[in-house]
Amino acid sequence: MKCVVIIGVGLIGGSFAKGLKRLYPKAVLSGLDTDKDNLEKAIQIGLIDQRATTKSMAEADMVVLAIPVNALVEELPGILDAVKEDCVVLDAGSTKSLICQTVENHPKRHNFLACHPIAGTEFSGPQAAFDGLYDGKTNIICEIEKTAFPLQERALHFFQKLGMRIRYMNPVAHDKHIAYVSHLSHISSFMLGKTVIQKEKNERDIFDMAGSGFESTVRLAKSSPDMWTPIFEQNKENVIETLEEYIENLEAFKKMMEANDFKGIYNEMNNTNRIKQILKGIPLTKTLD
Amino acid sequence: MKCVVIIGVGLIGGSFAKGLKRLYPKAVLSGLDTDKDNLEKAIQIGLIDQRATTKSMAEADMVVLAIPVNALVEELPGILDAVKEDCVVLDAGSTKSLICQTVENHPKRHNFLACHPIAGTEFSGPQAAFDGLYDGKTNIICEIEKTAFPLQERALHFFQKLGMRIRYMNPVAHDKHIAYVSHLSHISSFMLGKTVIQKEKNERDIFDMAGSGFESTVRLAKSSPDMWTPIFEQNKENVIETLEEYIENLEAFKKMMEANDFKGIYNEMNNTNRIKQILKGIPLTKTLD
Repeated sequence: MKCVVIIGVGLIGGSFAKGLKRLYPKAVLSGLDTDKDNLEKAIQIGLIDQRATTKSMAEADMVVLAIPVNALVEELPGILDAVKEDCVVLDAGSTKSLICQTVENHPKRHNFLACHPIAGTEFSGPQAAFDGLYDGKTNIICEIEKTAFPLQERALHFFQKLGMRIRYMNPVAHDKHIAYVSHLSHISSFMLGKTVIQKEKNERDIFDMAGSGFESTVRLAKSSPDMWTPIFEQNKENVIETLEEYIENLEAFKKMMEANDFKGIYNEMNNTNRIKQILKGIPLTKTLD
Repeated sequence: MKCVVIIGVGLIGGSFAKGLKRLYPKAVLSGLDTDKDNLEKAIQIGLIDQRATTKSMAEADMVVLAIPVNALVEELPGILDAVKEDCVVLDAGSTKSLICQTVENHPKRHNFLACHPIAGTEFSGPQAAFDGLYDGKTNIICEIEKTAFPLQERALHFFQKLGMRIRYMNPVAHDKHIAYVSHLSHISSFMLGKTVIQKEKNERDIFDMAGSGFESTVRLAKSSPDMWTPIFEQNKENVIETLEEYIENLEAFKKMMEANDFKGIYNEMNNTNRIKQILKGIPLTKTLD
């Protein structure tokens, strides 16, 4: 690859940029970002070589889109129009159905590869980017068959060199599953943070009394509302379903408490303890820790 | 100190034992545990020197109680009966009201110091114990005035040497606040784990799709039901109140989603983002990470 364009040079796009720099040292990396400071910072710290222009877009062998999912839906058709025939455009959005629908009938649909790398930290911006973010992580790829074969190959080769595991899935199944294992966690965390902040008017009490357990549970409440609002909007039906089931389980737990059914409470926790085994299989971002 | 007895040689008691060994190298540490394997393991790995006997209990200068809060309420009166006049008995329970009530009129109430060290990991057992668990952590002490002054001094000196920050609080306030910053986090995590396990019958899907965010949010669902059931039982009223407020916030979030009020969803998350600043003040157990 000679020319790559990264649109959105934050944690996700910037970490791809770091991998590209290492794996394709001769490639010129151009970047764009709606946040001027982010773009300048990305050039300054060497994540990318230059600001992208119409020319770099037309010459790109790969375009990486790492922007909020609402912007993705708006920008992708125009980006496909602008790239050359031999260019793979890939995204990193947390929702896949709407984006795949949006370009379903685009004449250059075969240039697009729908991706969701399951990787991230609660930090954002170019300075949060690091090489290794994607090592050992899963990349969920949707509708692989709709991407031109040589372009599939180019992208997969890159992901493989980054150390990613690939999982193929259809966009509808992706959005349903990811609502449980990712989107619900974020809401649970945000609402937990809200409940505690509401109650503990004196933040000193939270400082003094909270431990690492609390920190772990509310960590995701640090996440960016700009990124997460459009995810919830696009995945509305699935997210509401997960919320209903979660609230139902919490209500049942509360009812058991009210009925003094502590044998039931014990069993609930004991049954859920098998999450230990499940979690052992999840590749974690060590630097998060 | 010449003689210390640790009752419950798991993560909490064992980590106190490690600190005692370092700070009072001449003291003999005796231990007890209802789990025979734990006790043998604790002796084998050198956490404690020997199994405690009636004699070691009678000679103890300090007794550390690190057992589930239901056992604490049952055992504490008899332990106070058994110790000599110049012995401080301290606990590490996550609830403080019932335990303080239980010994309120005990003739040796002044031998007891009610403590709640805000420290722990999701691991348990003697092999999980480590020196440094308490460094920089808060220890909440209740009804300090009811403990004999020289015994207060002995315990506080130990905590200070461990690097702990002390916060004084009455037992009722402790139980109310801790329900928010600790007990609710555990329920939120257990029910999140349950919701996902219920849905994702194929655990492979959780493996593949879950990232570090999910792991962080459900980490507490690994916690011990033996330890947590009696905590929820003793702190029932407060825990139910936190659950009601949490469920209410989740319901409100769901209603906003249903009404397509994504401006409202954005604001909810944006307002809760200030948890970042709050979390910066929480001393974390680095080894948890």
